[in-house]
Amino acid sequence: MIAGTPDPPYYAVIFTSLRTEGDNGYGAMADEMGELAKQQPGYLGIESARNELGITISYWRSLEDIKNWKANARHLVAQKTGREKWYEHYKVRICKVERDYEF
Amino acid sequence: MIAGTPDPPYYAVIFTSLRTEGDNGYGAMADEMGELAKQQPGYLGIESARNELGITISYWRSLEDIKNWKANARHLVAQKTGREKWYEHYKVRICKVERDYEF
Repeated sequence: MIAGTPDPPYYAVIFTSLRTEGDNGYGAMADEMGELAKQQPGYLGIESARNELGITISYWRSLEDIKNWKANARHLVAQKTGREKWYEHYKVRICKVERDYEF
Repeated sequence: MIAGTPDPPYYAVIFTSLRTEGDNGYGAMADEMGELAKQQPGYLGIESARNELGITISYWRSLEDIKNWKANARHLVAQKTGREKWYEHYKVRICKVERDYEF
């Protein structure tokens, strides 16, 4: 649940979104993308929660790994369909995790 | 809801948590901390969602602003009570937002 990431530095993609009404195939694609992301080089973990606002954070070893995942053919289909059907508004933030600690 | 942050670079604090059972004063303190954070120098916005996992991301102008907020007297009380009562487990990640885009 809380991603067991390695010691920093590593990278995070923060995806914050507001959904449209209805499922319209979203749930199945979200599951597929979750599974596919895990198989990508440099994938370190994912954390996700949604109320009105949805937040999904995926963690990666490098910016190159993030770029490759963004360009994945099936993921490109998901991104396009997301803009057409599933999301009212979203924001993506690419971040370098510089420090972390836990309790 | 989706935080209207300025152009990068800026900083994000990703706080991912698993709560204990029951409220135990958590809701009131969470509201208070949300209000107090807004008044801190360098505060840029906040995004939050919770299912089983809770994710709160606060955005800041600089690492110095994050350090000052962490050291705020009332926030220190909240952090201590959080470890004693509210959280089973949490992880904090301090990040530099290098790039962002939205739809």
